[in-house]
Amino acid sequence: MATKTDLKVEGFAFSAMSCGLKKGNALDLGLICTDEVVPTAAVLTQNRIKAAPVQLTERRVRDGLARAILVNSGNANACTGALGMQAALQTTQSLAKHLGCKHSDVLAASTGVIGLPLPASRIEGALPALIGALSPDSAAVFSEAIMTTDRWPKIAKRDVNLGKHKVRVLGMAKGAGMIHPNMATTLCFVLSDAKLAPALLRQCLRKACDESFNRVTVDGDTSTNDMISLMASGKAMSDSLKQGSPEYRSFLRALTEVLQELSESIVRDGEGAEHCVRIVVKGLASQKACRAVAQKVATSLLVKTALHGADPNWGRLLMAAGNAGVAFDGNKARILIDQVTLVEKGVGLGPAEEKRAAAVMKKEQYTICLELGASNFEASYLTSDIGHEYVRINADYRS
Amino acid sequence: MATKTDLKVEGFAFSAMSCGLKKGNALDLGLICTDEVVPTAAVLTQNRIKAAPVQLTERRVRDGLARAILVNSGNANACTGALGMQAALQTTQSLAKHLGCKHSDVLAASTGVIGLPLPASRIEGALPALIGALSPDSAAVFSEAIMTTDRWPKIAKRDVNLGKHKVRVLGMAKGAGMIHPNMATTLCFVLSDAKLAPALLRQCLRKACDESFNRVTVDGDTSTNDMISLMASGKAMSDSLKQGSPEYRSFLRALTEVLQELSESIVRDGEGAEHCVRIVVKGLASQKACRAVAQKVATSLLVKTALHGADPNWGRLLMAAGNAGVAFDGNKARILIDQVTLVEKGVGLGPAEEKRAAAVMKKEQYTICLELGASNFEASYLTSDIGHEYVRINADYRS
Repeated sequence: MATKTDLKVEGFAFSAMSCGLKKGNALDLGLICTDEVVPTAAVLTQNRIKAAPVQLTERRVRDGLARAILVNSGNANACTGALGMQAALQTTQSLAKHLGCKHSDVLAASTGVIGLPLPASRIEGALPALIGALSPDSAAVFSEAIMTTDRWPKIAKRDVNLGKHKVRVLGMAKGAGMIHPNMATTLCFVLSDAKLAPALLRQCLRKACDESFNRVTVDGDTSTNDMISLMASGKAMSDSLKQGSPEYRSFLRALTEVLQELSESIVRDGEGAEHCVRIVVKGLASQKACRAVAQKVATSLLVKTALHGADPNWGRLLMAAGNAGVAFDGNKARILIDQVTLVEKGVGLGPAEEKRAAAVMKKEQYTICLELGASNFEASYLTSDIGHEYVRINADYRS
Repeated sequence: MATKTDLKVEGFAFSAMSCGLKKGNALDLGLICTDEVVPTAAVLTQNRIKAAPVQLTERRVRDGLARAILVNSGNANACTGALGMQAALQTTQSLAKHLGCKHSDVLAASTGVIGLPLPASRIEGALPALIGALSPDSAAVFSEAIMTTDRWPKIAKRDVNLGKHKVRVLGMAKGAGMIHPNMATTLCFVLSDAKLAPALLRQCLRKACDESFNRVTVDGDTSTNDMISLMASGKAMSDSLKQGSPEYRSFLRALTEVLQELSESIVRDGEGAEHCVRIVVKGLASQKACRAVAQKVATSLLVKTALHGADPNWGRLLMAAGNAGVAFDGNKARILIDQVTLVEKGVGLGPAEEKRAAAVMKKEQYTICLELGASNFEASYLTSDIGHEYVRINADYRS
């Protein structure tokens, strides 16, 4: 993992502490703060049931500017009715007062159990200490404070030269259940010292999400609390990035890489996951068709349990592909597990190949490629296996 | 369970035997036969990958007539390429020859592992004995021969008076994985001595399916082999049923009840299932909207693992409802688990109610009702829990 110094991004300070939302004094409150409002964009859950902090952030990020994000784990503040919205307002307004900024410049995010009242006063009481601890060096500890069932904190960073300026892109995310587009259920906070106008920043974030978080799945559910935000302080540059310029493309590439690394880390950390598998679909009539089939295969419970059992059950792969509503000729299908060809012209090549494929499937990471036609289109999707540990975590989550 | 005599339907004979497709001499070959062609309808999988017997049956049932159905378990004859189609042709043509009927009057169905060549000669060799054993009393043993991971055979029967005629409707089905519309993955064979024209028979079957097999889910996957067929010998009646007549409605009701009983039995027998839960959604803008939300809740893996843990995690219920793409106001939601009200106006009523709900959720069968608005529309969906046993069965199915 990167060292503390590596995680600095000019213009941003971080803080984290425990305020008793989680058991055992675990970190459960985090803050990202700037000295003045900066261009900010967010992609939010498409679930019709939106947690109070998501509703609040949706309204407040519309002007494309923000100064701080207050995050808690251990309680999703979702399905908490009018009291939930009141708690989100109370905590963010209190933070705004401490910082001396407008209410509308403070965003909020929550993750954890749905349906429990958020103890707003406890968070309010912790704010002075949280603000007091703000430091440019505290990104790592912030990334721990946003975890729920995650097994490790998720941090990714890219340095990128834009002309004569060295720019940083730092992302921190949490999983690990309800990971599914649109979008992957997660909280993800991205910070950069690049300079972009709010509208361009929003466009960058949407494009990068579409190549990362919208191509991963753990269990097919989209949560009530999903949020990916991107703040850009502009401190590393004098002029704003221009759409379509080489510098813009470099920035977008770095941002996409950061989001891909984070989304992959989330899949690898999928609840109880032992394997992280890239499903590649090639040769259909369009990229969209390839993507639809890849998503269906990546989401199929029968496929995911076969992945868990390291079982090269290619019949299930074809079965799932056939359920995407996309036309293809199964008798032309070719399936590879990494370098092992398992199926040619829709028919299995036999026990020897299955044995070799089974050996590949014992690896932590590998690729399943379905060639379903002759076109040059392709799309990929990242998925994890579903095993006993997933059931254990999710059958007993609240007990 | 009904006794052997109860299962007689005039005009039909049954047979079953073991031909070595399954291990340990388990029954794996079944035959339903009539003396002459009778009106026959079938609803087949919507998966783009259709097993050879499904492709064959699709073509042969188009004329609305059939004389026999040959069924094997232990091998799906799916994803078996040209050889698979050849095997389906060879076995059914051989049967037609033995029976002295046209090839096109013999339908076929297979269930079991995908991708293994079907040993056609072994089935062919067994046909004389299979035909020799045909008896009107052998429905029960037939229902055993079509099982795969089922824990029990699934048989349902209704006697119904149509005017002065007593008519029988007998259904036999198998599950137990890949249960999902459209349609539930299953083989299901329904026989009646009612008299209906082929077109009306087809209409009846589609209507009854829509109220039964298209409203149940176990794991969200639709198989390559799904098939529900309905044959009507007409032996119990002199005149054909007329669409819209009281007798027609009585017959449709009996057929629907048989299919509902079978589809419910399949959900109760869902792989590793310990609970069979009816998800009822009420109050949305249309019946279709209610159904979409019910399906989403019934299919959510996070909901299904919560059902396994007998956890009244109503937040997940609302989360899943919110993912159906249907607009509703979460702050008006009311949720009941049987008689226990768990949520009012989108907010949980507290630990006492959760405790009562958790007690209900320990039952084998119960209902979860989501009231999401004020309209009179409602729809229901039947689902099962997903637990360790499901993972065990599906991670290790082929080993």
